[in-house]
Amino acid sequence: MAHKHGHGREQIQFANAEDKQEFSKFPTKAGRRSLSRSISQSSTDSYSSAASYTDSSDDETSPRDKAQVNSHGSTNFCVKNIKQAEFGRREIEIAEQDMSALISLRKRAQGEKPLAGAKIVGCTHITAQTAVLIETLVALGAQCRWTACNIYSTQNEVAAALAETGVPVFAWKGESEDDFWWCIDRCVNSDGWQANMILDDGGDLTHWVYKKYPSVFKKVRGIVEESVTGVHRLYQLSKAGKLCVPAMNVNDSVTKQKFDNLYCCRESILDGLKRTTDIMFGGKQVVVCGYGEVGKGCCTALKALGAIVCITEIDPICALQACMDGFRVVKLSEVIRQMDVVITCTGNKNVVSREHLDRMKNGCIVCNMGHSNTEIDVASLRSPELTWERVRSQVDHIIWPDGKRVIVLAEGRLLNLSCSTVPTFVLSITATTQALALIELYNAPEGRYKQDVYLLPKKMDEYVASLHLPNFDAHLTELSDEQAKYMGLNKNGPFKPNYYRY
Amino acid sequence: MAHKHGHGREQIQFANAEDKQEFSKFPTKAGRRSLSRSISQSSTDSYSSAASYTDSSDDETSPRDKAQVNSHGSTNFCVKNIKQAEFGRREIEIAEQDMSALISLRKRAQGEKPLAGAKIVGCTHITAQTAVLIETLVALGAQCRWTACNIYSTQNEVAAALAETGVPVFAWKGESEDDFWWCIDRCVNSDGWQANMILDDGGDLTHWVYKKYPSVFKKVRGIVEESVTGVHRLYQLSKAGKLCVPAMNVNDSVTKQKFDNLYCCRESILDGLKRTTDIMFGGKQVVVCGYGEVGKGCCTALKALGAIVCITEIDPICALQACMDGFRVVKLSEVIRQMDVVITCTGNKNVVSREHLDRMKNGCIVCNMGHSNTEIDVASLRSPELTWERVRSQVDHIIWPDGKRVIVLAEGRLLNLSCSTVPTFVLSITATTQALALIELYNAPEGRYKQDVYLLPKKMDEYVASLHLPNFDAHLTELSDEQAKYMGLNKNGPFKPNYYRY
Amino acid sequence: MAHKHGHGREQIQFANAEDKQEFSKFPTKAGRRSLSRSISQSSTDSYSSAASYTDSSDDETSPRDKAQVNSHGSTNFCVKNIKQAEFGRREIEIAEQDMSALISLRKRAQGEKPLAGAKIVGCTHITAQTAVLIETLVALGAQCRWTACNIYSTQNEVAAALAETGVPVFAWKGESEDDFWWCIDRCVNSDGWQANMILDDGGDLTHWVYKKYPSVFKKVRGIVEESVTGVHRLYQLSKAGKLCVPAMNVNDSVTKQKFDNLYCCRESILDGLKRTTDIMFGGKQVVVCGYGEVGKGCCTALKALGAIVCITEIDPICALQACMDGFRVVKLSEVIRQMDVVITCTGNKNVVSREHLDRMKNGCIVCNMGHSNTEIDVASLRSPELTWERVRSQVDHIIWPDGKRVIVLAEGRLLNLSCSTVPTFVLSITATTQALALIELYNAPEGRYKQDVYLLPKKMDEYVASLHLPNFDAHLTELSDEQAKYMGLNKNGPFKPNYYRY
Amino acid sequence: MAHKHGHGREQIQFANAEDKQEFSKFPTKAGRRSLSRSISQSSTDSYSSAASYTDSSDDETSPRDKAQVNSHGSTNFCVKNIKQAEFGRREIEIAEQDMSALISLRKRAQGEKPLAGAKIVGCTHITAQTAVLIETLVALGAQCRWTACNIYSTQNEVAAALAETGVPVFAWKGESEDDFWWCIDRCVNSDGWQANMILDDGGDLTHWVYKKYPSVFKKVRGIVEESVTGVHRLYQLSKAGKLCVPAMNVNDSVTKQKFDNLYCCRESILDGLKRTTDIMFGGKQVVVCGYGEVGKGCCTALKALGAIVCITEIDPICALQACMDGFRVVKLSEVIRQMDVVITCTGNKNVVSREHLDRMKNGCIVCNMGHSNTEIDVASLRSPELTWERVRSQVDHIIWPDGKRVIVLAEGRLLNLSCSTVPTFVLSITATTQALALIELYNAPEGRYKQDVYLLPKKMDEYVASLHLPNFDAHLTELSDEQAKYMGLNKNGPFKPNYYRY
Repeated sequence: MAHKHGHGREQIQFANAEDKQEFSKFPTKAGRRSLSRSISQSSTDSYSSAASYTDSSDDETSPRDKAQVNSHGSTNFCVKNIKQAEFGRREIEIAEQDMSALISLRKRAQGEKPLAGAKIVGCTHITAQTAVLIETLVALGAQCRWTACNIYSTQNEVAAALAETGVPVFAWKGESEDDFWWCIDRCVNSDGWQANMILDDGGDLTHWVYKKYPSVFKKVRGIVEESVTGVHRLYQLSKAGKLCVPAMNVNDSVTKQKFDNLYCCRESILDGLKRTTDIMFGGKQVVVCGYGEVGKGCCTALKALGAIVCITEIDPICALQACMDGFRVVKLSEVIRQMDVVITCTGNKNVVSREHLDRMKNGCIVCNMGHSNTEIDVASLRSPELTWERVRSQVDHIIWPDGKRVIVLAEGRLLNLSCSTVPTFVLSITATTQALALIELYNAPEGRYKQDVYLLPKKMDEYVASLHLPNFDAHLTELSDEQAKYMGLNKNGPFKPNYYRY
Repeated sequence: MAHKHGHGREQIQFANAEDKQEFSKFPTKAGRRSLSRSISQSSTDSYSSAASYTDSSDDETSPRDKAQVNSHGSTNFCVKNIKQAEFGRREIEIAEQDMSALISLRKRAQGEKPLAGAKIVGCTHITAQTAVLIETLVALGAQCRWTACNIYSTQNEVAAALAETGVPVFAWKGESEDDFWWCIDRCVNSDGWQANMILDDGGDLTHWVYKKYPSVFKKVRGIVEESVTGVHRLYQLSKAGKLCVPAMNVNDSVTKQKFDNLYCCRESILDGLKRTTDIMFGGKQVVVCGYGEVGKGCCTALKALGAIVCITEIDPICALQACMDGFRVVKLSEVIRQMDVVITCTGNKNVVSREHLDRMKNGCIVCNMGHSNTEIDVASLRSPELTWERVRSQVDHIIWPDGKRVIVLAEGRLLNLSCSTVPTFVLSITATTQALALIELYNAPEGRYKQDVYLLPKKMDEYVASLHLPNFDAHLTELSDEQAKYMGLNKNGPFKPNYYRY
Repeated sequence: MAHKHGHGREQIQFANAEDKQEFSKFPTKAGRRSLSRSISQSSTDSYSSAASYTDSSDDETSPRDKAQVNSHGSTNFCVKNIKQAEFGRREIEIAEQDMSALISLRKRAQGEKPLAGAKIVGCTHITAQTAVLIETLVALGAQCRWTACNIYSTQNEVAAALAETGVPVFAWKGESEDDFWWCIDRCVNSDGWQANMILDDGGDLTHWVYKKYPSVFKKVRGIVEESVTGVHRLYQLSKAGKLCVPAMNVNDSVTKQKFDNLYCCRESILDGLKRTTDIMFGGKQVVVCGYGEVGKGCCTALKALGAIVCITEIDPICALQACMDGFRVVKLSEVIRQMDVVITCTGNKNVVSREHLDRMKNGCIVCNMGHSNTEIDVASLRSPELTWERVRSQVDHIIWPDGKRVIVLAEGRLLNLSCSTVPTFVLSITATTQALALIELYNAPEGRYKQDVYLLPKKMDEYVASLHLPNFDAHLTELSDEQAKYMGLNKNGPFKPNYYRY
Repeated sequence: MAHKHGHGREQIQFANAEDKQEFSKFPTKAGRRSLSRSISQSSTDSYSSAASYTDSSDDETSPRDKAQVNSHGSTNFCVKNIKQAEFGRREIEIAEQDMSALISLRKRAQGEKPLAGAKIVGCTHITAQTAVLIETLVALGAQCRWTACNIYSTQNEVAAALAETGVPVFAWKGESEDDFWWCIDRCVNSDGWQANMILDDGGDLTHWVYKKYPSVFKKVRGIVEESVTGVHRLYQLSKAGKLCVPAMNVNDSVTKQKFDNLYCCRESILDGLKRTTDIMFGGKQVVVCGYGEVGKGCCTALKALGAIVCITEIDPICALQACMDGFRVVKLSEVIRQMDVVITCTGNKNVVSREHLDRMKNGCIVCNMGHSNTEIDVASLRSPELTWERVRSQVDHIIWPDGKRVIVLAEGRLLNLSCSTVPTFVLSITATTQALALIELYNAPEGRYKQDVYLLPKKMDEYVASLHLPNFDAHLTELSDEQAKYMGLNKNGPFKPNYYRY
């Protein structure tokens, strides 16, 4: 089962034997070492795009060692510097402008407070966009405690702004792994407050609760999980009969998938290449390995800007689509000598091998939009006969003995994670989906959801989409009674069968 | 449940109450009148594109009243004129050039004769492309008897060419409804020959066997059904517990769907509009109702040629896709006054109402790519204050009292069925899928398929695609052992989970 | 000097020695034979698209031998059948709907009658669109006499409708060459009426007046010429010092050029290929020879529909543009074996040679969008070892001894002339340009124009464009006084220097 | 006469009265003050893209006060820090990889040394790309002295690398205006060395020579000028009869124009918007003011990425092109309320007025791709009721009293100058054109060029293009003798008439 994503988050390979093994071990281990091994890959990924604008590097004191208090007198948080709150507030306000779906959700649901009584413990990237989500949850009645799912991605100012308004946040940019688990623990383990909902991104929070505070699950009504990795862990738990509450897989909702992969990659491939190499796209010969959603997005954009694109595929159906969309389908070895740019979007490993790299022409650019850092065999380039020259951040020239240079971006890690940004609009879709999933799980009548992993009901997926239509001044048509009857549809949806391909 | 297709074949609305009612009645009625009612809509659709090139209109004698014999002395057929065989043979040869997938299948499977012993009774459009299919089945070991699924669509010369080679064919262009059922009966009811496989397109043959020769099903190993209508009937039978053999729904295979809808409509919308109206696309304001596969195909092509396209949608997810693809999402009533062209692709009824028609500007073109003839309320235009003027075949000017003209194409029936052609390549994909479905059902071990309706296994869908890749000189990449293991895939596929959206 | 056009009219090669020779002879020869040689190529080109919808083939009597009278009692015309006038009127009315620029011109200029006193003798294709032009000229005050510039292209019903309203028309579909010159003569040589303006398309009328009635030029204020051929002849006359009145070259106006070539070919390449071959464009490998305006139009459309297009060029600047637009630039011989379609747009000769044809793959389609019938060496295919098989109108299969078939369209003549239609909108631009050129020449103060060939003033070119903007509901911005001063422009144009490339 | 460029260089308005006035003054004034007024706008433009990668801010000593010597013992230069030479050399080597046209020119012309004896004084941006040009000139036999045309744009390391190899360079990043003229003077005024060729970008060097060392022109064979401003000054001199040597206008060569405007803007609009705002293009409503080459480039790119684009135009011909290309043509005031992004590409002033700005919706982005900083009336936003908030480099939020924010990029200056980079490939075309112009002027036989301003001969323009084709592995077709004769062309070009529009 291949999973291809390009949205700047971690991804794991479900059916990979080693992964499974590691996973099966993880709930049983304890102690610092085992934590270090079982930490989700995502939590240590580099994360450039959501970086802080202000420079916090001058203050070397660990936040754990600082005594901080917000203007309301609370010390129930741990952030880099509470004084950055004002700057963070401005960042949140800017993000709000592009997240009108959440603001709209606040307004629509505020009267009834659908999350009244909800006590949500969250573990996500802590960015201005996440802050908009958290403050929406609060506006809908929830109490929240929050921590970071990645040791690099926290925007310190935003964390400060949240702490200032009274949300207990435990996170800063540049945590050590020990800090990471300490923050999660502080978030979960609070006197007089016990979570009844979990929002997780990567599964580390869920893992920690399983390991340290299993009794918490007695009160938890559900887990909402955002990432491929975390979803995989949940399916494993479910399969093993160990999942003790309902869980919602929001990663695989249609809207999120299309935006994270097709639409977002359509833009980020251009952005990532431009920021790193200043390449002119017109006339460039490009091979894109893999014609899934990510590959389709990359090919569309590059072709539109005048690149001459061919693709490689293992799946004849995707290959036939590529043909019909106007791309030659080739084997990498047939074309590698002519290519100006090589982009991997397969989710597989060693798609670009040392042999391919040896045959590339001088100046060829190689980058990865697909999966962790396995697609390009970068390790094979760490050999004595080759010289590495770092020419810019995220850009290395690998120099062959004959002077040939191959340009490797982000050392083969995800280009769009490392070298471009994720538009707020994409994050808005994700955040809205998370909010609706929390509302659904929290309010579902007893028995609707069992101890299993669920996809977001299609109707809610449609609701997420509808909340974003005003951004485009898009006007939906409503079915007449007669038409609804003719189509056998409810006028409010859902409008498509589950198997619909969109 | 909305089903949208634009491939030039009939479609029915599954959940439509009237349809269901009519359907539930159909196996119980008998006699000429009831037949006339239960005949599938497809069998009487006009069908221009596959029309005979030669003029047969001079010979008014019914084929049923003629004594004909082929050059081998056989009289076991009934066609318009056996003497047209040579011309038909040439048409078949031309079709073979674009159907290399079937020719390739003949070669690959000829040694083992996977259809040896198969006795196939078929009811489809009888065209050069179908002849390539039939002769492939014969080459693979089958005996075939064939009849037409539509009273207009038979290419007489092709029927003659098939009859000349010894295939018992019972079909001609311009059958009466009585002829239609007579031909089906002659096809099924043959002394000393009993079918063990059925290939149907529309369900009329299957219906006839159910009604008249139910005992035939004792020997039948399976039914392969091509059309939406026929598939619907089979699901109804299955639901009612009356399906007594396995059936294969080839209509919903990925490859067929994408080609019949997205890719084929991308081209046929241009072709249909151009042949009927000589319109210049550049700068035209077009509204496309419905952004499913058919709508997506239409929008892509029109935008590419410089039209300014907006869309209407009821489903927020499709609407959001339209936004991201660069189309304004509007209500029809908001834009109707400005539009140069209105195209329906919804599968719904009365999407374009008399009120809309009244507000269109002079010269507006209205046509339907979606569903039978219900989408545009053409009936409302048959009123005394409006003048109809037929300006060309398939083109009517409807003239309002103030002189305003609205141009209605094909009287609101499917544009691409009536006014453009279906490329042989699309038909090749359908025919290959049918052939593989017959092979699969005929050779499946006892018990693999129950008395139910099945989708083509994904692996066979992939095989259909792979047989068509040589047309594009496309070269698939093969997984290495290491990669297959890493991905958890078999090197020969299937490569995607069933829920994959392509 | 290469001239490339694809608009369905004749083209000649200016610098071609043979042409020059022939041309230099033409004003001196007389008699039937020389006429036959000096007749413009355009006058005998096949012309399918503007063909009559009604069948006139049943009446074999020559119009010259018929006595006809219109309902006003006039016999001052010669058409196929005056009784077809009503049908022709309807065609004209339909054309008027897409020619609102001319209708608008009628309205704007009707008060002042800028052509009052003008006596225009015209020689053009006689189609519904031309009728709208003629009736506009009449509405603006002109008297007109008209004849056909092509022996095949006259729409008989339209000619009848014009004759019925009192315009002396001398033309029918299927004239002999003798008829052709007889009609021109009847048009020019009328008792008591002498032309003071000439509107010509191909130069034959101008030629005839030079040869037979040179004294007419004493009263003629100017010639407006539409075609490449005719313009060439005028420049030759001018160079030789024999041009005795001002002439306006409307062929090279920006608007006409862009529409006749880039925009019109963008659509007609698809239309022409589809109507003749029903080809599916997706995934087809296409080589386009020549990346001028015609080639650019073809490439844009084919790429947009999923074809994989490469180009050949002799000019490095155009080749570099092709690269930037995303097309591989190749030599024909390098790719010929892989191509599915070969399209010539060069204006050159023998671009596709017998050697290329020999190396094409089975089923390859070859057609010409560029220049007369010289680009493909079709003559080389008329050899005994090859079999020609006419499979449809305009479609020949050339069969090699080994069974390979190459599909040649329109026997190498212009595809869009033979196999597609020219949209009324394009003809509207041409007709409006002609009308404005007549008004300009007729009203120009003494001395503005000498005995030379002129391009339409840029301001009038802009006016033609502005008259067509309402078709698109396009709203121009007007310069403020301050902006006009800043730009150094007159607020009413012209807005660009003459060398502007658009 | 409107000149629209978007390539990151200065532009002036030819017909602008104030400009003319200033210019007419400039050769007569002397002294520090007048210099400060007559300095070309380009010399003080901010210039972000070619910025040094190394940080030189720590060394505050003026280069004029430092004693530096290169490794060969020479002190004949003045740069920031000669020790940075090695790093600069690497930058040059990297640039060489994308400037193979110049490298190829070195190889082709090296044997004959076409610039032997040439003494070139140059004044341009000093970047790695310029260094490749300078070293090419040296390789072809020239001696060079060089200075900077802009006080911000010098890459100090590159200047050091040039100085290290013995080229007398006088330039550093962050010159004062006094430094600027001092450097020019040092460059021109050298004992025992007198220039015989001038390569200028902006006209400041030429101006200085005119003013201070007019006798130099006795030996100068020609001036090659790159910029709109400088070209304008030369035409002024020529008109005034004061141009005393031939000058070559390389700014208006076809190749340079298409690359600087159409192709480069197609990419830089995306890059500039993305780097500053992280906007998602899909579904955004964008209005582009002006549909010249720059506007066409912007529209193409934005439409391709899913934006919904409309345009404003004053010229009906460009407006009609926009229609045919699929863009609605509107007045800005009609649509301003709905727009997400407003982009100016007109070359005019106050195209976006305060009134427009007042009516924009919250979050609207405004930027300029067209002309200096006049197109958007940014000055009108500097009023007390509005708050400016700098949110990132080059990004300001202007906040209305009601909280509405409008996002202004680069304070209305050129977006692509300020916020994106110019690809090396575009610079390669410019540099190659400059080199060829120098060779042409230096080697032209007496009398070919008078004391006037010339465009590059079309054949040389074609040669520049041909030198760049190998970058794309593009293969030109050669005319056969027969074809060349038929076309009336020389087999080596030029291939098009001068008025050809490309």
